[in-house]
Amino acid sequence: MKFVAFAGGVGGAKLADGLSRCLSPADLTIIVNTGDDFEHWGLKISPDLDTVCYTLAGLANPETGWGRVNESWQVFEQVQQLGGEDWFRVGDQDLATHIERTRRIKAGQPLSHIVRDFSHAWNIGQTVLPMTDQSVATFVDTVEKGELSFQEYFVHQRCIPTVKSFRFDGIENAQPAPGVLEAILMADAIIFCPSNPWVSIDPILKIKGILSALSGKKIIAVSPIIGGQTVKGPAAKMFAELGIQPSALAVAKHYAEIITDFVLDAHDVQLTGDIEKIGIRPHVLNTLMISIEDRQKLAQNMLHFMKRD
Amino acid sequence: MKFVAFAGGVGGAKLADGLSRCLSPADLTIIVNTGDDFEHWGLKISPDLDTVCYTLAGLANPETGWGRVNESWQVFEQVQQLGGEDWFRVGDQDLATHIERTRRIKAGQPLSHIVRDFSHAWNIGQTVLPMTDQSVATFVDTVEKGELSFQEYFVHQRCIPTVKSFRFDGIENAQPAPGVLEAILMADAIIFCPSNPWVSIDPILKIKGILSALSGKKIIAVSPIIGGQTVKGPAAKMFAELGIQPSALAVAKHYAEIITDFVLDAHDVQLTGDIEKIGIRPHVLNTLMISIEDRQKLAQNMLHFMKRD
Repeated sequence: MKFVAFAGGVGGAKLADGLSRCLSPADLTIIVNTGDDFEHWGLKISPDLDTVCYTLAGLANPETGWGRVNESWQVFEQVQQLGGEDWFRVGDQDLATHIERTRRIKAGQPLSHIVRDFSHAWNIGQTVLPMTDQSVATFVDTVEKGELSFQEYFVHQRCIPTVKSFRFDGIENAQPAPGVLEAILMADAIIFCPSNPWVSIDPILKIKGILSALSGKKIIAVSPIIGGQTVKGPAAKMFAELGIQPSALAVAKHYAEIITDFVLDAHDVQLTGDIEKIGIRPHVLNTLMISIEDRQKLAQNMLHFMKRD
Repeated sequence: MKFVAFAGGVGGAKLADGLSRCLSPADLTIIVNTGDDFEHWGLKISPDLDTVCYTLAGLANPETGWGRVNESWQVFEQVQQLGGEDWFRVGDQDLATHIERTRRIKAGQPLSHIVRDFSHAWNIGQTVLPMTDQSVATFVDTVEKGELSFQEYFVHQRCIPTVKSFRFDGIENAQPAPGVLEAILMADAIIFCPSNPWVSIDPILKIKGILSALSGKKIIAVSPIIGGQTVKGPAAKMFAELGIQPSALAVAKHYAEIITDFVLDAHDVQLTGDIEKIGIRPHVLNTLMISIEDRQKLAQNMLHFMKRD
């Protein structure tokens, strides 16, 4: 069986890593959100792609889930000393990724080629694809600060402003990256990783052709909300600010038109009936991924029911 | 007495440092060649300015004379692993300088303001000025490889191709940086540091208004050639390839129309008569600067005769 995972940052990377530990590399393609890509220090930064690749390569910082393990901060500290921009922390090894990506993009290489070459350099056997090679920029409209670029909202403003809506600049003209539609069409099942529905999975779904390719497929979303809270990031806060009680059920409803199956945490077992009522098959599993074993266990359990059904 | 030093890279930085140890900071202005500035990894690099500043700040690598002391190479090694451009080695701390300089230049700040701010951050009391805020690019025309940008010739080709001539692109329209002409006009003496006459000092001299400002001044050049050899860099090789026997005398002749005094090494004491013949006052000193004490001693000895004469 072949699988495609849609992933954003840390939560998505963890499940992708769990899946990679249970599947042969040729059977897993990970399609990654690039809507929060941005420029910093004049460099092109793809936070979700890097988090997924670092995690699959075993290079991610296990404490933060993003950035590099055994990272040093020489450049950042010196930039700080010179009075430079220090609201976004960039480690030395991570910086090298941005420098080389930027050079290649400026030389005309598509992002998908760059990710392929970097995956090769980092010994990643699975196929990692950006959702698109074109530039898509996520903006968050907020009550207090007006419209903010995603990283401005996420890092600089620490998700404090109240969310009103999202805008994905450039999404209308973005094409799926080479290989994206093929991977979806060839897949036996699609997994929406426990990533932010609003700003990680939705941008992927809005890329031209992707919804059509998903049609008729077995699609399993994993809730990023457990007991009304997100493990990491602002998803629960976003639901609340948009007037929706944050819960695994809210996530299932968000994807209701698209998914066939839904994985919710054992904490939320009482929601299974409500999820069935909206025509989605619920699967209750332990979804909290603290250790690497947790990732693998969740992936195994998912593969178990996907292969069975 | 007030002094202005014209400097290129390592040799210039060493003498500037020696002078800084003998003079009150207000009495020393260093005007630095920017003709070998270039772009690498998308960043604006000013090798001579950085070498001078790092040296004055005590941040320079004492073994190489350029780059930073206690440097780490995390970014460079990771860029190499990703198959990036690795012909020019950039250390982590040094990289921070380029990142922040590039950000400021792109934001419209003149290079001279940036150098002033960086000098402040690095506790440099002396005034360090780029020769110009405009972009000047040195090209080296060679027999074997045609015309090369300076860093291509200097670093990538390791000065191997045979030099035919030099070209300083943009020099006609370059204005002296704010403060340059004032410093020269206020100075009691000008020192040409033991830097490359062709590609470090000549570009400064070619900036509009500088030669006129020098007119009538006491100007002392220090030979970068000792016993027919350069301590560092390709100056002697350049003289030879341009058909001139490399020697301290050749350097004195190169500057003959401009300078009043010339410092040559004790090794070359036999050349004093020839230098007098071309109307320049020779001063025989130990000019080889291995230790920090050597720098200070040379500066002291120069100040001794400059104050006496």
